[in-house]
Amino acid sequence: MPLSPALRDQILAAVDAGFDEQIAYTRKLVSFASQRGEEFAIQDFIARDLAARGMKIDRFDMDEAALTAHEGGAPFSAQHSRAPIVVGIHHPKAETGRSLILQHHLDVVPVGPRDMWEHDPYGGEIEGDWMFGRGAGDMKAGAAANVFALQALRRIGLQPAATVYLQSVVEEESTGNGALQTFLRGYTAEAALIPEPMDEQLTRANVGVLWFEVEVRGFPTHVREMGAGTNAIDAAQRVIGALREIEARWNAEAGDHPEVAGIDHPINMNIGLIEGGDWGSSVPAWCRFQVRISIYAGQKAQDKYAEIRAHIEDFSRRDRFLNQNPPVLRQNGFNAEGYVLPEGSEAEAVLGAAHQAAFGAALTSGFSGAYLDARVYALYARIPVLNYGPKSRAVHGFDEAVSLSSVRQVTKAMALFIADWCGTESV
Amino acid sequence: MPLSPALRDQILAAVDAGFDEQIAYTRKLVSFASQRGEEFAIQDFIARDLAARGMKIDRFDMDEAALTAHEGGAPFSAQHSRAPIVVGIHHPKAETGRSLILQHHLDVVPVGPRDMWEHDPYGGEIEGDWMFGRGAGDMKAGAAANVFALQALRRIGLQPAATVYLQSVVEEESTGNGALQTFLRGYTAEAALIPEPMDEQLTRANVGVLWFEVEVRGFPTHVREMGAGTNAIDAAQRVIGALREIEARWNAEAGDHPEVAGIDHPINMNIGLIEGGDWGSSVPAWCRFQVRISIYAGQKAQDKYAEIRAHIEDFSRRDRFLNQNPPVLRQNGFNAEGYVLPEGSEAEAVLGAAHQAAFGAALTSGFSGAYLDARVYALYARIPVLNYGPKSRAVHGFDEAVSLSSVRQVTKAMALFIADWCGTESV
Repeated sequence: MPLSPALRDQILAAVDAGFDEQIAYTRKLVSFASQRGEEFAIQDFIARDLAARGMKIDRFDMDEAALTAHEGGAPFSAQHSRAPIVVGIHHPKAETGRSLILQHHLDVVPVGPRDMWEHDPYGGEIEGDWMFGRGAGDMKAGAAANVFALQALRRIGLQPAATVYLQSVVEEESTGNGALQTFLRGYTAEAALIPEPMDEQLTRANVGVLWFEVEVRGFPTHVREMGAGTNAIDAAQRVIGALREIEARWNAEAGDHPEVAGIDHPINMNIGLIEGGDWGSSVPAWCRFQVRISIYAGQKAQDKYAEIRAHIEDFSRRDRFLNQNPPVLRQNGFNAEGYVLPEGSEAEAVLGAAHQAAFGAALTSGFSGAYLDARVYALYARIPVLNYGPKSRAVHGFDEAVSLSSVRQVTKAMALFIADWCGTESV
Repeated sequence: MPLSPALRDQILAAVDAGFDEQIAYTRKLVSFASQRGEEFAIQDFIARDLAARGMKIDRFDMDEAALTAHEGGAPFSAQHSRAPIVVGIHHPKAETGRSLILQHHLDVVPVGPRDMWEHDPYGGEIEGDWMFGRGAGDMKAGAAANVFALQALRRIGLQPAATVYLQSVVEEESTGNGALQTFLRGYTAEAALIPEPMDEQLTRANVGVLWFEVEVRGFPTHVREMGAGTNAIDAAQRVIGALREIEARWNAEAGDHPEVAGIDHPINMNIGLIEGGDWGSSVPAWCRFQVRISIYAGQKAQDKYAEIRAHIEDFSRRDRFLNQNPPVLRQNGFNAEGYVLPEGSEAEAVLGAAHQAAFGAALTSGFSGAYLDARVYALYARIPVLNYGPKSRAVHGFDEAVSLSSVRQVTKAMALFIADWCGTESV
């Protein structure tokens, strides 16, 4: 049932009234260096904060056995975070509305070479409309919006009239195991909202993502004999070439996948890390590299990984060096399938109305070429999942930034959505 | 003047008599982990040992300013060894013969992945005719041969009747600055002998060697946008491709260099080390790799490096990404020119006779596609330099080994050479 114009205006004003505080809170989140494995302090911060705001707190570890037994779970590597998952729980006085999950992740990707940043990566510096910092866009502004959308209701004496789980996870950037763990813990609801930096659009579909490592080894010799051709760095490059054939083949199949209609090059393969060799004048004996490749929604992660393995095996049989030294592939992260959000859900309609009220424009939807924790809700919880958030710049890049005016409007839309979806009751 | 048959037989027998001790000494040298920067202990060991054998010891540091001011000096990188150079000095009672430098290096290249060795890299294990270990061939067996060729003369109450410098250096594997420092210190002689593992041949000519590092940087983005093409690992691969063009061009010029007649692919370029990127799902912002490439004897190192730089600049101008993010090249090691040993020297004739006596076969000569410290003596001291040593296997590789029977014969040839070149006097 649509919000009354009076309540709507009250909520919009309440977001404005709290916005300075929300900016300070976002900046605080940005100040935590929360790269993979470092998220303990920021998860404790948010757990204490949500408790102070009246939520019950469920803090738990990721369960390797349960996660890796699940078809959407990713293998644990040595780098896997051990930080806890935090769920803040709101129980209403009377459960009259529709329950909701608000999710965010607080892990961030590495900063990269510091001298390529103009701004302090953990400074949360503001210049004009933009707040800079690693994770400012992806997705600490969204995390703060989760907190302050609820806070806006409290500011006017209201709270959701339904159970709300505010789920703060980690491992979104490398495995998606954090979000999956909340599902395995038993959390579900009638809808989920995740304010990833989506340029104020709703995500209609996204890709699945596979991560794996490739290692090539071979017996080196003095460089004066390298004509023997056993250079592992060179051989790794040939394997990368073979993987690029897979990427090209999969992009050529785009026509079979209506959710990517109009998207140029929907499947991207990235060699994100490489290392090999020990010495300038020794022919390198080893080379390892990290691969991230996307797959279409609806495709099974294990089928596609098997296709990759088969292609590399076939390629290696025809390579004089690799035939003797077959590359070793190891999954070491994402084993994730994509999803499509069917049109016409009640949740989408409610968000559409909220967005219209906050922005004065219709909600549009788009495709995401990145991994999204939303897949857990779409594929396993099987509930409508609204991946929707603010404008950002240089996500994963240098001088990553988020638009504060966009955050403000998105927070308004989120607060209106919560009030409408869950209903409200007095605090 | 040729040695008398009686003296010759005495010397040959003396090498045999000391050979068990020589093997133990070689094994002791192999037991030192003397990778770049780690050579302090082994240099102290040999300084003490040469002193105990009656030599005077000059131990001195490499002089960065003097080395880098010399045309054959290599730049100091952060990895440059600070270990001292050791020269053991023998002064005869009467200087009646020809003076001689015996040189070796005690630095070794990295071991690489330990699990690719069957033998302990620092164990000096013996199996049949072979002693295994990093540096066993390159060139701790040679170092021991320097010591025990002199020791064989002492065993029969003789010593060289001329000044002999036994020069124990480091940095042979990455800059050649150790050998150059002995020259800058003022050491020279009427000939030099360096028992590198040359398969019982005399080196007639070798290549020069350049080392440099290439760094590519670029502004990364989320992988979902990587069509923008700013992947630094991919860009580095294109630069490697451009460098391979240089390698092909230089090999095509082999006909202009008679010293490589009959040598297939005399110029080798090796990418010995690569590292890049921070995260699987971030488009990598940086990639660095280490290049080693050879040049023909007679070519100036700086001219050839300038040719490489110009080619990469030209290539980069035509590359959309590299045009905006030009690769940075930095010399970080060898800046060394090759040499040709002219036929017909007196030193070669004396070694030829010694080899014939030890092996019962004529001395042959060959080409070396590797850097050799011998270039310092050929190019700067301008003295005959005999690079000549035992058979080895897998130099710079796994399970590097040296043939003990070959070491024995080579040591005999060396002892005969010393006795003939320097003359002998009683101890």
